Amino acid sequence: MNEDRIHENIVEIERHLRKIDYIIRKKGREIITEENITAPQFQALQILINNEEMTIGELSQKMALACSTITDLIDRMEKAELVLRRKSSKDKRVVIVEVLPRGHEILEKVLKKRRAYLRGKMADYQLEEMELLRGQLATLYEAIKNED
Amino acid sequence: MNEDRIHENIVEIERHLRKIDYIIRKKGREIITEENITAPQFQALQILINNEEMTIGELSQKMALACSTITDLIDRMEKAELVLRRKSSKDKRVVIVEVLPRGHEILEKVLKKRRAYLRGKMADYQLEEMELLRGQLATLYEAIKNED
Repeated sequence: MNEDRIHENIVEIERHLRKIDYIIRKKGREIITEENITAPQFQALQILINNEEMTIGELSQKMALACSTITDLIDRMEKAELVLRRKSSKDKRVVIVEVLPRGHEILEKVLKKRRAYLRGKMADYQLEEMELLRGQLATLYEAIKNED
Repeated sequence: MNEDRIHENIVEIERHLRKIDYIIRKKGREIITEENITAPQFQALQILINNEEMTIGELSQKMALACSTITDLIDRMEKAELVLRRKSSKDKRVVIVEVLPRGHEILEKVLKKRRAYLRGKMADYQLEEMELLRGQLATLYEAIKNED
């Protein structure tokens, strides 16, 4: 009995997460395009900014893409002056990818637009409802963040 | 004052949604790969199953991809016996994409695995907490589902 209710909840949670994800991604693609970067470039920027002194190999692992694909991606991002390859300050033999000011700026711009979009959609929310949702999402994130 | 709290909530909600999305997508890619289909094929299957008698043009609009890209995608999906092009029963001049039993099966298999993954991650949730989260996600989905 309880099992049925748990199953039903899981089905609905998975379905809603998938649909919310789909809508936000579609909107996100529009915003990213306005800033003249591609979705993989945006994803790479986020990862590089959240992790210091990353190598191409580490980035390729995080993004679950081949090293050669990441090399091409970083080449294009270097041309667009979003990132720069340089020697690690900790170990001169290691080459890391540094995010340039333009990269930080574009990430911040995209996040601002995403927030403005979400805020517009959530115009009818009371502050208390927002806080409840925020707490729920934080809990879910804590539950799923560790790799299997 | 209230404005600051609203802003802070929006920042955190956007951030958590983005991070949850990232983790579930990464897991989702693994599951999809096990079933020998690609991410765009999975997305197309979902859209075609949720909307009856779709044309290539309609699918391309929904996926925000060029018609030529969708044509290639459907060609590969036809070869994999996931879908079939056929004349619409409503209007013989219109060609629509039909999902074959194998397409339905694979979608169901992928969704089952996603649910099992989520259920495992949410093992510590009480039923009441699950229901609260489900309600919150349903409300958020209702808020964002309409196009601008």
